[in-house]
Amino acid sequence: MSTDIPARMLPVTDRTRHRRLREQGSVSRDDLDAVLGAGFVCHLAVVVDGSPLAVPTVYGFDAAADTLYLHGSAASRSLVQSPGASVCVTVTHIDGLVLARSVFEHSVNYRSAMVLGVPRVVTDPDEKLHGLRVLAEQSAPGRWDHARGPSRKELAATTLLALGIDEASVKTSTGHTDDADGPDGELPVWAGVLPLLHTWGEPEPDPALRAGIPLPPHVAERAGTQAG
Amino acid sequence: MSTDIPARMLPVTDRTRHRRLREQGSVSRDDLDAVLGAGFVCHLAVVVDGSPLAVPTVYGFDAAADTLYLHGSAASRSLVQSPGASVCVTVTHIDGLVLARSVFEHSVNYRSAMVLGVPRVVTDPDEKLHGLRVLAEQSAPGRWDHARGPSRKELAATTLLALGIDEASVKTSTGHTDDADGPDGELPVWAGVLPLLHTWGEPEPDPALRAGIPLPPHVAERAGTQAG
Repeated sequence: MSTDIPARMLPVTDRTRHRRLREQGSVSRDDLDAVLGAGFVCHLAVVVDGSPLAVPTVYGFDAAADTLYLHGSAASRSLVQSPGASVCVTVTHIDGLVLARSVFEHSVNYRSAMVLGVPRVVTDPDEKLHGLRVLAEQSAPGRWDHARGPSRKELAATTLLALGIDEASVKTSTGHTDDADGPDGELPVWAGVLPLLHTWGEPEPDPALRAGIPLPPHVAERAGTQAG
Repeated sequence: MSTDIPARMLPVTDRTRHRRLREQGSVSRDDLDAVLGAGFVCHLAVVVDGSPLAVPTVYGFDAAADTLYLHGSAASRSLVQSPGASVCVTVTHIDGLVLARSVFEHSVNYRSAMVLGVPRVVTDPDEKLHGLRVLAEQSAPGRWDHARGPSRKELAATTLLALGIDEASVKTSTGHTDDADGPDGELPVWAGVLPLLHTWGEPEPDPALRAGIPLPPHVAERAGTQAG
């Protein structure tokens, strides 16, 4: 390999990728897993009384088992009305605004995954405990072993849904506008990206926290880190 | 008013509000407007081929006209298949994790609004221009006057939807867990809130930006400010 090819090629490759493939569908399972793994709230689309609803709810992603776990409460009316009906789980991360030279070319940088299918109610006690653990750890890693686990009564009171990752899509949009390539490139308009950052803040202790309970590392370590 | 009542009452009132009303539906139009006004991406639920889909898309909120504006592309398959069909627009802001003493009591602090109805395609040219302006300014205030406005051809190529705010709901969840009130209050478990912050980052100029175009105030002023 020539030593100067990488140095000359890389910037061009980056620009090419940004300009030609701004919005890009992917069939890569790795890309899907990355989007599902980075979030903890999805929008669950169900049909209730004949009309679609998008309901925000927490989820857990078990990549090894090709399964999303969801609390049943968000889908409960839909489940009662039409068991066996399809749902859609959408996970979206908004990464920034793409400010173009014309309003028409403005867009959003994002990563979004969609999983479609018919969820099943988890009845096996072992899977239910496993699924709830996956769900809890998705938003709050380390929490399952720190907090009190669910009692038999609490387990019975929770409806857990499992949705297989059989039909899914993932789309991402990154980089800058490509409108400098056309006549708009001559306009005296500032173009660029305004990033949107999602960050965990400083932990706020419960006002009723007992004295002498220190902030545990699994919470302390997240402050200032990226979410999503 | 006695001078010592507010000082004694306020902490109790705060705790009462947090504990009794953690998750709260509201019928206040002001609350709805605040949630819709704070975002720029919604999840649009539609039915396609008989199955619900939740699709992320940008929106504009015109409070004075009781109207949400949406790009038609996200709903296009649904519109073609079943004109006059209902949709659901959900706007969700995630504010943090509520870390409780038991995994069962864990929850999320959030604000979420849902608008239900049958969208209409905007055909009036004046309303179309107005709606696109509302949509552009929702995510990028000041952008409409800075960037090149839409040409006749661009206007014709854009399907804009309007959804009246006739049927809507808003829910918010704030504050801490209330599980210190029960036997779990004795557990040696750290409880509190881990806030999730959404912040605009430093603007990144387009690599193809012409020399001599300064960063305009409407972009510069947003860096470091809260989004959502």
